[in-house]
Formats: sequence, C-alpha cells, structure tokens
Amino acid sequence: MLRKLNTLKQFGNLNFTACAAYHSTRKIPDLTRDRYSVKRGDYGTLTNDDIKYFESILSNRCITDKNDIEMHNIDFYYSYRGSSQLLLKPKTTEEVSAILKHCNSRKLAVCPQGGNTGLVAGTTPIFDEIIISMQLMNNIERVDEASGVLVCQPGCVLEKLEEHVSQHNLVMPIDLGAKGTCHIGGNVSTNAGGLRLLRYGNLHGNVLGIEAVKADGTILDLMSNFKKDNTGYHLKHLFIGSEGTLGVITKLAIACPPASKAVNVALVGLNSFEDVLKTFTSAKRNLGEIMSACELMDHQSLRFSVDHYKLNSPIGEYPFYLLLETSGSNLKHDEEKMNSFLESSLARGDIQDGVVTNETVKVRQIWAIRELLPTAKINEKYFFKYDISVPLSRFYEIVPVMREHLGDSVCDVQGFGHIGDSNLHVHIICDEFSDEIYKRIEPFIYEYTAKMKGSISAEHGIGFQKKELLKTFKQPEALHLMKELKSVMDPNHILNPYKVLCD
Amino acid sequence: MLRKLNTLKQFGNLNFTACAAYHSTRKIPDLTRDRYSVKRGDYGTLTNDDIKYFESILSNRCITDKNDIEMHNIDFYYSYRGSSQLLLKPKTTEEVSAILKHCNSRKLAVCPQGGNTGLVAGTTPIFDEIIISMQLMNNIERVDEASGVLVCQPGCVLEKLEEHVSQHNLVMPIDLGAKGTCHIGGNVSTNAGGLRLLRYGNLHGNVLGIEAVKADGTILDLMSNFKKDNTGYHLKHLFIGSEGTLGVITKLAIACPPASKAVNVALVGLNSFEDVLKTFTSAKRNLGEIMSACELMDHQSLRFSVDHYKLNSPIGEYPFYLLLETSGSNLKHDEEKMNSFLESSLARGDIQDGVVTNETVKVRQIWAIRELLPTAKINEKYFFKYDISVPLSRFYEIVPVMREHLGDSVCDVQGFGHIGDSNLHVHIICDEFSDEIYKRIEPFIYEYTAKMKGSISAEHGIGFQKKELLKTFKQPEALHLMKELKSVMDPNHILNPYKVLCD
Repeated sequence: MLRKLNTLKQFGNLNFTACAAYHSTRKIPDLTRDRYSVKRGDYGTLTNDDIKYFESILSNRCITDKNDIEMHNIDFYYSYRGSSQLLLKPKTTEEVSAILKHCNSRKLAVCPQGGNTGLVAGTTPIFDEIIISMQLMNNIERVDEASGVLVCQPGCVLEKLEEHVSQHNLVMPIDLGAKGTCHIGGNVSTNAGGLRLLRYGNLHGNVLGIEAVKADGTILDLMSNFKKDNTGYHLKHLFIGSEGTLGVITKLAIACPPASKAVNVALVGLNSFEDVLKTFTSAKRNLGEIMSACELMDHQSLRFSVDHYKLNSPIGEYPFYLLLETSGSNLKHDEEKMNSFLESSLARGDIQDGVVTNETVKVRQIWAIRELLPTAKINEKYFFKYDISVPLSRFYEIVPVMREHLGDSVCDVQGFGHIGDSNLHVHIICDEFSDEIYKRIEPFIYEYTAKMKGSISAEHGIGFQKKELLKTFKQPEALHLMKELKSVMDPNHILNPYKVLCD
Repeated sequence: MLRKLNTLKQFGNLNFTACAAYHSTRKIPDLTRDRYSVKRGDYGTLTNDDIKYFESILSNRCITDKNDIEMHNIDFYYSYRGSSQLLLKPKTTEEVSAILKHCNSRKLAVCPQGGNTGLVAGTTPIFDEIIISMQLMNNIERVDEASGVLVCQPGCVLEKLEEHVSQHNLVMPIDLGAKGTCHIGGNVSTNAGGLRLLRYGNLHGNVLGIEAVKADGTILDLMSNFKKDNTGYHLKHLFIGSEGTLGVITKLAIACPPASKAVNVALVGLNSFEDVLKTFTSAKRNLGEIMSACELMDHQSLRFSVDHYKLNSPIGEYPFYLLLETSGSNLKHDEEKMNSFLESSLARGDIQDGVVTNETVKVRQIWAIRELLPTAKINEKYFFKYDISVPLSRFYEIVPVMREHLGDSVCDVQGFGHIGDSNLHVHIICDEFSDEIYKRIEPFIYEYTAKMKGSISAEHGIGFQKKELLKTFKQPEALHLMKELKSVMDPNHILNPYKVLCD
C-alpha cells in the first residue's frame, strides 16, 4: 500500500566535517607509502628558506604544526596517510601562482586539496608533498539569476553554494552526500557525479569557465559566462577530472539550472532486481523530464544506514529499495505523474510498498537514509569501496558475485548507487584493513567489471588507489597521450604526484 | 488573439544538399588564398607516387577529377574556395590511420571534411590540402534503447541519425538547420550548438566516447558507453570543438535522451525587445523543464524566410517573433502549461498575437520558417555571417547598432538566434562580397561584442575566418597552451592548417 509519509524521524543533511570530528578516536592508518611500498619521486626537500619564502607571501596561512596538518594528511575514510610537513592556505589566484612558481623552480611536489572527501586517495599526500588547501579561497563573486551563471572560488563548500544560489531561485547542477564538506573545486577537478547527474548532466556540460594555475605559476584565464563559446580549443576540460595533476583551479563559472517549484520523493520496496529494472524503465517513460534522481539501495545498505543513525525507516523489509525524486514546475502535474506511475507499478506488482512526500522536511528525511549511508560505522569498520559503471541489465550482478567470492572473510558486501546513470557503488566492509582480503578483492572485482564491459571508475576517479589499474584497463596509446599532456603542462611533475599516472 | 494553427503551407526540413544542388549556377568565389593573401605553409607537394599509395589503400575512393572535387573545395555559402587536387573517401578507421600516417611522413597537409556546412571556412582547404571526406564512414553500429547510447561513424548525416534513433524512442541531443547535410562528426569536431542545447546541454556533456586518429596515424580508443567514466584524463574533449586540427574523429558514442511523447510549438509576435525578455523569463518560469527551444527572429528575418520560400506566415507583422517549443511526457499537462503561459502573456500585453500547435506536420511548418531562414536567397546575395554570445539584457543591441553603422551600404541586417542560450546570429546581406564593406564590419562588430563582454564565436567556431581574432580576444597564455597541444598532437601541423591557430 502506498502511503503519504508522515512519521520519519527528522534528520539533517550529511555533513562530512561532523563525522570527521570524532575521527580523532580512530586508529591512525599506516603511512600509505609503507602499506603500498611506494618509492619517493626525485623531488626537492623542504628547507627553512622555502618556508620563509611561503611566509613572505602567506604570512600566518603557512602551517607547520603537526597537529594542524594531521587531518590534511589523512583521508576521510582513514584509509590513507601522507607525511606532509607544510600546509599552505592561499586566498587569491596570485598567491597560488606564486606558490607554484616557487615549487616548480625548486621541484617541490604539491598536493592540492579541497574538502578532502575524495575516495581514491587523490586528495592526501603520499610522501611529504606540500598541501595547498583551497579552503580559504571560498569567495562567491556573483550569481546572475537571469542567466543562471555562478562565479566563485574553488574552495566554496558545495552546500554553501546550494544555499546561496537558492536565494536566486537556482540550484547547483551537482549534489552529493559529501556536500557539507566537499569543495566545488574538488568536485570539478574530479568530475564528481552524484545525485543530480541524471537530470542536469555532468560537469563537462555545466562548467562554463575555469581559471587555473599551471605548474609553473602561469595563470590561465579560461573563464566564460556563456553556454556557447567556441573560441579555440576547449582547454577548460583539461582541468575537469584530471584530479589536480595538470593545474590548480582558482576560479569557476558554473551554469545553475532554475530551482524547481515542486519536489516529490518516493521510497519504494521491491522484491527482485528484475522488478527494479522494470520500475526504472517505467519511471523513465512516465516521469520523463521531471525525474531528477533514481537511487538503488539493497536491503543491507538501507538497514546499515537506518540502524547506525537510528532513523525510523518508513518502509518494511524488501530485498531492494528505489528512491525516486521528481523536480518540476507544477506541483499538481508532478503529483499526478508520480502517483499515476506509483499506482500502476503497484498494480502490476513491480513494487510492493512505498511512501511518497512533497514536504521539504520529509523529503530530506528520506534523502538522509541514502546520503548518510556511506558514512555509517565509518569509525568502527574498514571499507573497501568500489565505484563502477556497468550495463543496466547487469547492474547488480557483481554484488552477489562478491558475496559468494568472499564468503565469511568480510562482514558485509553492500550494493547501492545511481542506477539512473548505470553507476554502482560496492562497499565491502571488514573489521580492519587486511592485505589478504585486499588481494582477494583486487584485481578480481575490476576484472569482473571489465568482463561486463563496465568502467573501473564511474565518478570517484583514479587518484593513488587505481592508477596501476590504468595500465591494464586503459589503451596504451591513450595512456601515452595522458603522459604527453602531463609533460607539457607540468614538466617537473610537481602537481599531485603518485596520482592518476604511473611513472 | 491566440489561435490554433491550421493554415500553414506544408514545408519539409531544410536540406543543405538540395540548396547546394543549384549552386552550380552561382558565381565561383575567389580563391581564399588570394582574397585574404594567405601564404602557403611549408608542406610537401602531392606526387603521383602519393596518389598511387592512396589508391593502393582506397582503390577508386581516391578522387582526382576536378569537377568531382569542386564542391568539396567551396564552402556552402560560396564564400571560400580552396584548390585541393585530391579527395579521399575512407570507409574505416584503419584507412584513416593509413592515410594520416603517410601524410605525416610526407608532410602533406590534409583537410578533414564532414558535410561541409560549416560557416567559418573550417571545412574547405585553403591551398592544396588533401581533402579527407568522411561521407562514406556512415555506419550506425548500434543503438541501445534502455541506456540511450548510440554508437556510429562520424560521417552519419544528423537527420539520418535522428530518424534512426526515433525508431528506438530516442532523440538526438543536437538539432540544427543543416541537419539534412551536416555530419555528426563535424558537429562534434566543431562543438555545434543548435536548437536543442537549451534542453539537452552541449556535446561536451552528451558525447560519451570518441575514437580518433592522431596526425601520425595513431588510433586513440576513447570510447565509453557510460555517462560516468572517470578513468584518467578526459581526452575525448580535446577533439570536441578543435575543428579537426588535433585529430580526425572516426567513431562516436552519444547519449540520446528519450523521445518526448508530446511536442507543442508556439509562434508569437511581440512589440519590443523588452517584451521579448519578459516573455522569455516567464517561459523559463512557467514552462520550466518542458521548454525545449526558444528562438528569436526579428521582423526582417522572418519575412526574409517567408518571402523567399513562399511560406504562409501564420502570424501578422510584428517587430519580433519568438518560436517556443515544449517537449514533454504528458500532452495534457504540457498543453495546460503552454496555454496558461501564452494566455497570461497575452493578458499582460507581453505578446500581441500567436499560434500554437501540437500536430506534427504543423510543428514542422513553423520550424521551417526558422530553419530555412539561413538559406533564403543564398544563391543571390553575399552573406557576412556573425555568431556571437551576448548577455541576455543586451541580446539584440548590436543589430540596430550595425544598421546605423552600415546604413545603405548593405541590403539588410538581420538578427535572429537562440535567445535561450544567449546566442545571436547577425546576417549582413550584400549583393556581393566587397572588401570595403568587409572592413567596415570587421573588426567593429567583434570589438562591440567584446565591449559587451560577449563571445566572438558562440557555436560556429573559429575556422579560417576568425583565427586572427584570437590574437586579440584570447588570453596569450591560453593561446600558447593551444599551440603546445597542437605541437604534441600534430607536430608537423598537417591537420587542417590555416585554421583555428595562427602561425
């Protein structure tokens, strides 16, 4: 029976910082360089003269205190740890330029860092790279309501931008669980996907302009206010998804879509993956242009989130759940579409039960189950996290395969993700990191993905974690061109070394 | 009074080939190299041995007959003419690779050519570049209805693709007047914009994967079937909008949106540009997610098309016209939205009159007025064509400015375009090319555009026509990086020389 939602316990948005706050009780991870036997590159070593130079530019925004640096050396999931001894906090493009110019001349490696919410060890140093934190470059330059153009610095937190543009009746074209902490610059550098890609497309389509600083300190002005701007090579795309290895983004222009007047969210329970596919196909046909999200959670995932955060689940126990969202301009029309879709799905037996709401607070409560999921038990367990694109018809196949493959050696295998974009997340949960389990999972899971003609990274990127895999899964000619581009744009390889590219 | 449309004379889609057919009666334009005093680059000269080699690969798809080559040497508007003596028609990626490998070793310049509908002299040779026509690489490999992925060769004509994917309940994410002739490979190489960008975004967002051949013959496999695929640098974007100067696209994967069940089109008359702005803003708010096009035509433009093609205009005489299209999943809902928007606009006096229809034939008839417009009198007049992005509030300003500036020295100045994307086309129409008028128009029109903080090329690209302008309007550091990329990917500069980049 489909019910209007009215009982869910209230829960705010996910905030990675809040979660990170009690990280201090967690076991500090091994140094990445030790756990994975990495060899330091042929880089310069930081001297007092270097620090003095940086202080001359940045004054007290030049951090050498170990405690202050620690959280920047460790990733959000406590899976990786670097040993940087210097954290720089520029406020302007010119400061970033001066920093890089000096580092390049001294061949000092740097690790640009946004909100440090990345999941592939792309945002933390591997050795002693100087961390350039973008957190003080958080100025919103302007928002133009008529054109939807937002211009801002890269250190703006995604959620703050969302709040800001909402005052102009706009939304950010990107939304993800880490929005309370992640930076827009990091989102763009990693070509983050998230929850709204289904509706608004990816960042290659939505970023209108970029200002970036090259390794030698050159400031590239690739800003534009227009959706159409065919003036020469489309250089900005070099910085979208290259994970800070080709330059440091210092300003952005982003196209923000108009805010929707009406948002409806439904959470439905389903008996089989076959029913999930049927329901998704029907939703595409019947919700059409107003569908703004379609998220799958398996039983284990939803329970994990609900139990850990003590949420009241608004729905009974089913093997699968779909969270469907519509965003449109006419509440009456949208409700009609959503209700008619849900009722016919129920009548056909594709879905077993569900709740639906358009009240803002309750919409947030349903979303909280999905958005909090990736952080449940983050302080108690070790997570092997996978992020793959797979053909829709085989979307969930790898989850039971991994359960079978790993048996009792792990606590749990969960599958959830953006089924609307063919993007599955697999979490394999253990009590702690184990090299033995690691080797049972990898490269098995990637080989299986490749066998399904999937992609080994959908939205999380390559970082340090997956760079070796590119040797197997990327065409050698494409890898070669990547290296050529790197050599042109960062000949000393000082930008985010040990990431994306192998030596 | 708003009326249901029921009287328009039937008219099919624009077909550039049909127009081109009676080109033979037109005056052959001057050689581009003479009209613009270009110096030939330091390239090899075609020998009989070269031709023999190409014949060994391509057999009779190696064209040396002058008459057969002529239409490939001249652009669609008869504004530019090259003097190529060899036209190659590969059918496979391997053939393109072999051609380029040979040309690169012999330093023979090439001009890759799609449907030759480009408007900036990017698709015709300037000197004796070997033309590589993609027209026989027109195979559709597959369409997947569930994911919306289309995989095809670059020589597929856009309209054929549209017809093909429509059988799978999909639409192409791009649509433009030249669809009957232009190739999808050319669309991607030039990052063409067109009529649907407002709804489906640009090609950087919609192209999922590219296979391309580098200047040295290396085949780059950057194909992907997924919207999310963050595996290393996003190299495919190098080939989107670089106008064939960095490589030749040989295969494409494109994300096609689901076809809409309901399409409504309205053509409305307005008294002032202020009313145009009000109406567009209101349409964005009230039509929201179903608005799929918003095209402006000034009085002169609409009349030009209607008179030349002897169409029955369904609407009286007004200074401005807007063509508004909605595409949605529910005819009743969409009609309600459209009618309510139009009625309130009429009531407020923002629009003066209009017609609206959802019948396919009549929808096409209204579109024909807009789509045929750029080809009206193409065989009788010379067109100086401009394609700029400008801030919405000053969208039309440059048209009266140019009229004032040029006075009686030209036949007409028309303004029309994609107001939904801030993209204006300005056509300045003369009896024939005149150097004097040319120099009165340029660089004046570009400087004025720059003063408005606009872009000198919205969707047409740079080609040969605008490359000198980049020196003024592009940041030197960005231009420098463009040249560095060119040197990496095409060290002998054999790919589409004299275009995009200056020496």
